[in-house]
Amino acid sequence: MTKIDYFTEERSTETVNARMGEDISPRLREVMASLIKHLHGFVKDVELTQDEWEAAIDFLTRTGQLSDDKRQEFILLSDTLGVSMLVDAIQHRRPEAATENTVFGPFHVDGAPVLNMGANISLDGKGESCLYQGRVLDLDGNPIAGASIDVWSDNSEGFYDVQQPNQQPTWNNRGVFITGADGCYEFIGIKPVAYPIPDDGPVGQMLSNLGRHPWRPAHMHFMLNHPNFERIVTHTFVAGDPYLISDTVFGVKESLILDYFPCSNGQAMWQANFDFIMVDNR
Amino acid sequence: MTKIDYFTEERSTETVNARMGEDISPRLREVMASLIKHLHGFVKDVELTQDEWEAAIDFLTRTGQLSDDKRQEFILLSDTLGVSMLVDAIQHRRPEAATENTVFGPFHVDGAPVLNMGANISLDGKGESCLYQGRVLDLDGNPIAGASIDVWSDNSEGFYDVQQPNQQPTWNNRGVFITGADGCYEFIGIKPVAYPIPDDGPVGQMLSNLGRHPWRPAHMHFMLNHPNFERIVTHTFVAGDPYLISDTVFGVKESLILDYFPCSNGQAMWQANFDFIMVDNR
Repeated sequence: MTKIDYFTEERSTETVNARMGEDISPRLREVMASLIKHLHGFVKDVELTQDEWEAAIDFLTRTGQLSDDKRQEFILLSDTLGVSMLVDAIQHRRPEAATENTVFGPFHVDGAPVLNMGANISLDGKGESCLYQGRVLDLDGNPIAGASIDVWSDNSEGFYDVQQPNQQPTWNNRGVFITGADGCYEFIGIKPVAYPIPDDGPVGQMLSNLGRHPWRPAHMHFMLNHPNFERIVTHTFVAGDPYLISDTVFGVKESLILDYFPCSNGQAMWQANFDFIMVDNR
Repeated sequence: MTKIDYFTEERSTETVNARMGEDISPRLREVMASLIKHLHGFVKDVELTQDEWEAAIDFLTRTGQLSDDKRQEFILLSDTLGVSMLVDAIQHRRPEAATENTVFGPFHVDGAPVLNMGANISLDGKGESCLYQGRVLDLDGNPIAGASIDVWSDNSEGFYDVQQPNQQPTWNNRGVFITGADGCYEFIGIKPVAYPIPDDGPVGQMLSNLGRHPWRPAHMHFMLNHPNFERIVTHTFVAGDPYLISDTVFGVKESLILDYFPCSNGQAMWQANFDFIMVDNR
């Protein structure tokens, strides 16, 4: 190139991207080129002002400064802008009959106890009990044996055990179940409750400025693993929850909404049935 | 809307933007709608993976955590991605004859001493001296009286005074000059030297991964203020500097590159001449 490509408004994207070296990772080159194209496209579309730029720098800085090993404000930002769900959707395109994924969330803890089918994971005894029942099946409807089902939910006050003052997992409302030959699972937990994401930081302020609330509809988390099938990370939601249509992290999919009905086992509890359909990865 | 707009990969942008409230700032709505469009567009174009998303969250978090009142890593990020220059370019479109803006940079300090014309701002006496001379003119070539010219540069080792161990302004290589009726200015400083931006953080690592260096070509900073004219924030650059074509923050414009020549005043120093052309704001 004999003509020197000094920076101009018109050719900003090309000039910045032309700076990348020859011998860098091809994937990094692809990702950065697209990032620069869209980032500059955004600034040009809205003709971002100097004051707005300063506000953005300040927002991002505070978002990073608030984050530590207990609180991850950038993940909240990604979640509330729909980015987390978008990445999840792109990475987990499945046949229509298969169970859909949703966001993992920050409250999973590895190492929950493996329990016998039918066990009660609500250790504090608070909240409305619910019998969770269903099967783990392949796309042809055959039961899958040996699938591990990791479940976790908030308590009746809307907090996960690790959000309690000591911030240690007590395994309240957590457990792992392994399917047998019939592919069935069954456990007792609570009917979960809606809760707000932490909204005392920059993301909460952003939601407020956008006229949005910080609430998530009630949901039970599930992660299913089996060596021969694609992992499922999902929730089931409670039909009728007022936040289903406005989940602040956009996690709801219609196929994941369950009716909770009075339990058929004669005890005073709810029941929620859901079959998981896994996709063979072989 | 009777059909509930749950999140999908296809309609992600529309769904997220539809969440904004009715009564929010129209400008905030415009900026956020474009941000979401481009952010989701980026994720879709490259089909961002979960691992890449995690790396991005980690990068942004560390960039915020490193920032404080002395070090602003998010501004470095904006600078090195060409965003700072793009915002500056959009906000300072000027007639071709007028002096072009460039990035402000983080090293300006308010309150530098107002000096008499011809004063020497190099208080430490180090580096190669240079006589800076020129005029401040309007677009018709008339001299502008009463313009304040705030100048600052690094020292001969590539550091601004506030980057020295005590981090206080000593006013070494800083000063303010006020033009008289002839619009002329004149002062003695040093021929500045090239220096790298701080590259021991996430931005430095990013530049390295992209095959880019962290260097800025040598430059003298100028900020011109006058009540009747649009502020100018710019640098002048030293012709022949090896980093002119690859300034890591994209600050160079061809019109701002000066020849440094042996001074005509008979002393052993350089000389650099530059006329500033201001745009009337009345």
